[in-house]
Amino acid sequence: MGEFELIRHYFAAAPCAQGGVGVALGIGDDCALLDLPAGEQLAISTDTLVAGVHFPAVCDPLLLGQRALAVAVSDLAAMGATAIGFTLALTLPQVGAQWLAGFADGLGRMAARCAISLIGGDTTRGPLSITVTVFGRVPTGQALRRSGAQPGDLLCVGGFLGNAAGALPLVLGEREAAADVAGPLLEHYWSPVPQLQLGERLRGLATAALDISDGLLADCGHIAKASGVALQVNLAQVPVSAPLQAFLGREAALHAALTGGDDYVLAFTVPESALTTLAREVHVIGRVLEGQGVTLRDPQGQDITPVQRGYQHFRETP
Amino acid sequence: MGEFELIRHYFAAAPCAQGGVGVALGIGDDCALLDLPAGEQLAISTDTLVAGVHFPAVCDPLLLGQRALAVAVSDLAAMGATAIGFTLALTLPQVGAQWLAGFADGLGRMAARCAISLIGGDTTRGPLSITVTVFGRVPTGQALRRSGAQPGDLLCVGGFLGNAAGALPLVLGEREAAADVAGPLLEHYWSPVPQLQLGERLRGLATAALDISDGLLADCGHIAKASGVALQVNLAQVPVSAPLQAFLGREAALHAALTGGDDYVLAFTVPESALTTLAREVHVIGRVLEGQGVTLRDPQGQDITPVQRGYQHFRETP
Repeated sequence: MGEFELIRHYFAAAPCAQGGVGVALGIGDDCALLDLPAGEQLAISTDTLVAGVHFPAVCDPLLLGQRALAVAVSDLAAMGATAIGFTLALTLPQVGAQWLAGFADGLGRMAARCAISLIGGDTTRGPLSITVTVFGRVPTGQALRRSGAQPGDLLCVGGFLGNAAGALPLVLGEREAAADVAGPLLEHYWSPVPQLQLGERLRGLATAALDISDGLLADCGHIAKASGVALQVNLAQVPVSAPLQAFLGREAALHAALTGGDDYVLAFTVPESALTTLAREVHVIGRVLEGQGVTLRDPQGQDITPVQRGYQHFRETP
Repeated sequence: MGEFELIRHYFAAAPCAQGGVGVALGIGDDCALLDLPAGEQLAISTDTLVAGVHFPAVCDPLLLGQRALAVAVSDLAAMGATAIGFTLALTLPQVGAQWLAGFADGLGRMAARCAISLIGGDTTRGPLSITVTVFGRVPTGQALRRSGAQPGDLLCVGGFLGNAAGALPLVLGEREAAADVAGPLLEHYWSPVPQLQLGERLRGLATAALDISDGLLADCGHIAKASGVALQVNLAQVPVSAPLQAFLGREAALHAALTGGDDYVLAFTVPESALTTLAREVHVIGRVLEGQGVTLRDPQGQDITPVQRGYQHFRETP
């Protein structure tokens, strides 16, 4: 048995690979098989993380395993889907038992957290790269698209923004911070929690949704474009965590919240009437207007233009 | 818009990305959505091809696109599934318009041939690598597993074996051959035809099936192990193409057919009674016996042991 065949057996034996609701057949045959309840659709998303591009080439494999899965599952949350399973395409330069054990541990922890099963994959030799494809189910017609935002809707996010971007200098070892500041930021970067429950709650309520991966303003641009509307973000309402503010100061923390990527927090639009049924952790940060693009309004009610503040993504190119 | 964002738009505009039967939502949102008819299961498989490992770093992108998709779709055929869609995770060192056009062309040709739609993916920067995840549907309980072979069943394959392994010295530029020899071999290597129709016909007939990717004897070992039986392969019945025999001679051609990988031809077991309903292109090459492992019988009815012939994969380690 070759070493890569051994890895397959290793993953097949992992706790997260022992099946789950909807998994009719897991690892070990030519295909995995999923069952889908009548009246539901299957949601699918793929994400690749490349060493040296999406994560430091040298990093804790446990954290990497957690993050690789979380990033992909976040797309299921953004669609309002319930997680079922995932495949793992893992390309490795060499086989290190300790690295594999750590990676599988991280993957397994995040899988348990998201109630998602490893159902198949491929392990190959080459430069370190991880492609995770996730599968979820959502009642037919109730998936949260990007295209339904209506003028008058409120713009909301599901949590603090900018933590992952703020953590980047810590991840790269360029800066240091006290444990009470570094801890929460690094936790958010390495172990983002896909907002699956929030996504499910938003079915039938949200008119548009996505998860923030490119940065708030860039991703709001995607909703604006897909929905044919304008989004107005109120700077004073953008939620920034205390650790991020302590680390960067208010101004830079807001900049990270507006333009930093990798937050994996949901952004969505809802009619004002729906807001009462949503839990308190939801933050209203703006409003849907007629028009196009994304505008940012300062606490004095003035629109801030991109050039004055040096932000790059305030307005989508028409 | 960044260059990788441009690539996404490029693929989204491809003819094979314009949806198809079962595709409720394609490229452009956080997830793709598939519909699955009642009484069917979803079949899923992932394959990664890495430059310099699974294909020459310098090669025709059209051929690469064809092959990357075919290799993955072949797993659907092996399961008896009907193709629906696929995701493409493409990692590229740089963006070359000509390379992309060729790759997309090859991908599109194979997609049309297999009636499968591009439904999503991810494009990232890094060392060239392609992960294709395929989705198919199969009536619940009728998927072709590896585990149902019964003593007394016949062992069959769906076509000539060894062509891809025989083509390898041509692919690598180590040898040359006349066009009538090189052509068919290279065609088989670069553009294997997933045996989707055969797989569908085998539903309810085959007791076990897979596609030959590791080589006939190694893959028969997988059926033997999963089914708890022995497989006997009759050397005289192993089908070898005329071009392969002309290129390598009978002895080396048989060796390629037995141990060479990348054929993507189906191998399966059926009760003798089912054989009459199968088309003529199916080749009976052996039989299922009580026991374990794979044995090879020469034309004189003698079992050939691995050591005597230098083959590595004749018998699975128990």
